[in-house]
Amino acid sequence: MTSTPAPPHAPARESAAPVPDDRPADVVADVVVVGGGGGGLPTALFSRWLGNEVVLLEKADVLGGTARKAAFWYWVPANEPMRAAGIADEEPDFLRYVARLARPTAYDPESPTLGLSPWEYDMCRAIYASASPAAELLAERGALEYRHCAGVPDYWSELPEDKAPTGRVLVPAGARESMSDGGLVAVASMSAAASRDGVDVRTGHRVQRLVTRDGAVVGVEATTADGRTSRVAARKAVVFATGGFTHDVDLRRNFLHAPVYGGCAASTNEGDFLAIAGPVGAQLRNMNYAWMCPIPLEKAVARDPGMSGMFSVAGDSMVFVDKTGRRVVNEKLQYNELAQRFFAYDGDRGEYPHLVLVQVWDQRSQDHSASDEYGRLIVPPGTDDAHVIRGETLEELSAAIARRLERYRGVTGGLTLAPDFAATLRQTIERFNGFAERGVDEDFHRGEKPVQLLFNGVVKDEPGRTNPTMWPISDRGPYYAALVTGGTLDTKGGPRTNPDGQVLDDTGTPVPGLYGVGNCVASASAQAYWAGGATLGPIIAFAHRAAQAADREPVREPAAAPSSQLTPA
Amino acid sequence: MTSTPAPPHAPARESAAPVPDDRPADVVADVVVVGGGGGGLPTALFSRWLGNEVVLLEKADVLGGTARKAAFWYWVPANEPMRAAGIADEEPDFLRYVARLARPTAYDPESPTLGLSPWEYDMCRAIYASASPAAELLAERGALEYRHCAGVPDYWSELPEDKAPTGRVLVPAGARESMSDGGLVAVASMSAAASRDGVDVRTGHRVQRLVTRDGAVVGVEATTADGRTSRVAARKAVVFATGGFTHDVDLRRNFLHAPVYGGCAASTNEGDFLAIAGPVGAQLRNMNYAWMCPIPLEKAVARDPGMSGMFSVAGDSMVFVDKTGRRVVNEKLQYNELAQRFFAYDGDRGEYPHLVLVQVWDQRSQDHSASDEYGRLIVPPGTDDAHVIRGETLEELSAAIARRLERYRGVTGGLTLAPDFAATLRQTIERFNGFAERGVDEDFHRGEKPVQLLFNGVVKDEPGRTNPTMWPISDRGPYYAALVTGGTLDTKGGPRTNPDGQVLDDTGTPVPGLYGVGNCVASASAQAYWAGGATLGPIIAFAHRAAQAADREPVREPAAAPSSQLTPA
Repeated sequence: MTSTPAPPHAPARESAAPVPDDRPADVVADVVVVGGGGGGLPTALFSRWLGNEVVLLEKADVLGGTARKAAFWYWVPANEPMRAAGIADEEPDFLRYVARLARPTAYDPESPTLGLSPWEYDMCRAIYASASPAAELLAERGALEYRHCAGVPDYWSELPEDKAPTGRVLVPAGARESMSDGGLVAVASMSAAASRDGVDVRTGHRVQRLVTRDGAVVGVEATTADGRTSRVAARKAVVFATGGFTHDVDLRRNFLHAPVYGGCAASTNEGDFLAIAGPVGAQLRNMNYAWMCPIPLEKAVARDPGMSGMFSVAGDSMVFVDKTGRRVVNEKLQYNELAQRFFAYDGDRGEYPHLVLVQVWDQRSQDHSASDEYGRLIVPPGTDDAHVIRGETLEELSAAIARRLERYRGVTGGLTLAPDFAATLRQTIERFNGFAERGVDEDFHRGEKPVQLLFNGVVKDEPGRTNPTMWPISDRGPYYAALVTGGTLDTKGGPRTNPDGQVLDDTGTPVPGLYGVGNCVASASAQAYWAGGATLGPIIAFAHRAAQAADREPVREPAAAPSSQLTPA
Repeated sequence: MTSTPAPPHAPARESAAPVPDDRPADVVADVVVVGGGGGGLPTALFSRWLGNEVVLLEKADVLGGTARKAAFWYWVPANEPMRAAGIADEEPDFLRYVARLARPTAYDPESPTLGLSPWEYDMCRAIYASASPAAELLAERGALEYRHCAGVPDYWSELPEDKAPTGRVLVPAGARESMSDGGLVAVASMSAAASRDGVDVRTGHRVQRLVTRDGAVVGVEATTADGRTSRVAARKAVVFATGGFTHDVDLRRNFLHAPVYGGCAASTNEGDFLAIAGPVGAQLRNMNYAWMCPIPLEKAVARDPGMSGMFSVAGDSMVFVDKTGRRVVNEKLQYNELAQRFFAYDGDRGEYPHLVLVQVWDQRSQDHSASDEYGRLIVPPGTDDAHVIRGETLEELSAAIARRLERYRGVTGGLTLAPDFAATLRQTIERFNGFAERGVDEDFHRGEKPVQLLFNGVVKDEPGRTNPTMWPISDRGPYYAALVTGGTLDTKGGPRTNPDGQVLDDTGTPVPGLYGVGNCVASASAQAYWAGGATLGPIIAFAHRAAQAADREPVREPAAAPSSQLTPA
């Protein structure tokens, strides 16, 4: 994720109670897409290419949502370059891999659904079936050309269930070599295609509620910053692609499995669709899990809209320590799993002892591993380094860390460093340095998996070393530190849809005319982060399926005259 | 919790879409209470005592719900016996204690709401204000007389925030000395009062949906086993007290913070109110946390309706070990916190290494600590001991455990014992025995807190021993074992209500005529289990408040004639 400016003020949330189709709409289209990010843009394009009139309503003043900040890898099983290269990626293998990770405590290779619920199983099959056709169509139409990341491994490529450990990741063709600007490239490219092909894009529109008639969704009402309410009618369908609820504190606290501090989703991702979909009977699923990543504590508390998750923890002469000064985690663990570690609970003391960890590094890592990409905390000169804490000695550094933590007592449950933090830190570094010299992390297995090498970042070349993730931390200062906690890229729960993106009511029946795609609806991935792009690959697949199903909806002509069709609630 | 027979077949769930008030009701009352357990019975009584006609609809064929199985402690701050004894329990102190534990990462003694959300803070104040008046009124009317458990400590009595560490717990006056039958006593007593005072109790009625008129709730529809649908009109209010969603697998998987196997709530607790309340705009809160407890794996998988949570892990010559044979937890940790430990996640392996633990004990604990109360696994001769695994030696026992686990591979993610389990278990016992001899558990601090002694159960008298929770495990067999995992007593999330129990819509406005009490609505306790009875004490407080507020509702006379008031949805 790269930095973006703070979004402009969006209209405030209003009542989400649906309104009847009792007056003419201000705008009419076949398909109304709500949200113009990584889910909404492809949905609008796919719908338009099927011949529909499409209006796209975006809450922010720019398109792109969270995708703007992303590298925009997209994970596409059995993709065209794999097929061309003869790399096998059969559906049964794919399903075992995804089921093993989505529901590890329920995974059963002998079960007809592999331990997934029937709904989850069907959704995973839909990903397999549609991700590649969707990606190919976007490329063919010039909306999103890609290059194949043949060498990028899945995040659990070492599991026996992963029969296609590399090759499923695509990235926008125009992204730079490090791929960190993939999202900007993708958003620009899809936006240009939307403009070229006649999608009616309206930014600054916050959708507040549904318009319904005889149990069907026939439009929405949106408000704009000038205080006006527009009614937008949909002859066929409304497709929500409004993102998750990362930026609603109450929703985070009351649904997520861990007390996270925030995340790097677009700041417009406030879970609007949850309240909007409730009145038509939508049932929420996968509300407990999220796409997770470590985040810098201070930017999260400041609600910095440009904050990036730490997708890659750079540096070799670098460790994470807890408030006692001890290492408690493999710092190179893949970001979704690394983020879980902050929320280990101590039931004896009633606290989260790793809620805030301290990244510590030396001048070597500062000189050779600084980067402003992927949310790294070791940043180059001239970039924002307000989060960096310095000390000439470990004792000075420790005192500075203690002072910095003092600022955050009110939001960390009163977290302070242990009195002997500096001494313990010194012991920790000695132990780590021994591991680094031998290239083997006996405590946490740092650098032992392909994905950990993938995200190691640039380190100083050291010919002959076997483990490039570790190097002894210098016995001379200066030293550096930064405060880290766990957060979300975005959440992944919401109304349950069927594999065609149709929102289901409490009896499992589609709500006519209502669709959802992306992080605003329930992901069948449950707790898994299968691979880089396991967010956007499935999202593009479901965008394609939803657009096709919406295209087949019967036409419901909007109300023609005011008041004549008044339908009391 | 004590054992109860399997409940009879209840009517199946139907569509929860509300229906308009378009035909005369089959039954009319002022207040309709849905659910006849620990929340519904007091609500019905309080409403009746205010002069209302009350109908109580219960899904099961018997009253009592989860309360039937409970010890029915109720936690009442500043209760009458405390006041009579001059024990101070001031509101500011109470609030700091509950806030510290509900939201440990947000707790801030300097914050006006102590780090709670304003809603949580107001709800906690309501508990303080109303628990004692509610308990007194139930006692005065002869519906629920109590005795004061002066010596029972809060579950975190050692925290500096707990200024009234003992004295807040009441128990039904007629409960036996061990208190395990308190729920049966309370249900019988409140049911008798309901009958005496003219509450119209109808069991075997599953409420399916609301009846609404002009945005107000004016009744419900319920189905019975014979396939009939009854419409029950409420002139003033409908109060749901239908319990949590412990027995809906999809809801558990998609909301709870941990992948639990089930729980010991009444088997009718299937989360019915979630779907019923959604269409009127209810917003769900505290869906991630639950009242948790360890449960026997085998009874949970078998969905044994008589299963009890393990509220007290008996035995001194007894340990829990993981699949490698190592101790990983303080076995005497208070049950809610002990249950969390099963769900520690290993992000390096993508698994829950402690998902199933093995309780191991010797003949001494079998002879001296067997009990059929509180879900204990060391049971006396003549009781159901199908969960007990035996071996004359540790090797025999280990082999038997491995065979038992093999049966559950399909529901444990393929869990197996490590090949050297028996050898590691032997080392673990040696280490534990050293701790037991010295009375100090250097690894997990067993027996160091008052609550751990409270739940230690009966152990063989050993004059002079300092730590009654530990005794060396014999070097001679026979040995015994049982499989344990984490579960729920019940969940504690649902629609958000105000402190008067009124269900709030997405704008925070009460839905006219709709109330909720107990585990079917959101608890402000968040992740905390403050004390024994921290479930039922607040529930009785909110029952009282809801009954009072419902009594003040304007009267909405039900539809008089068929079809004349037809209101299309």
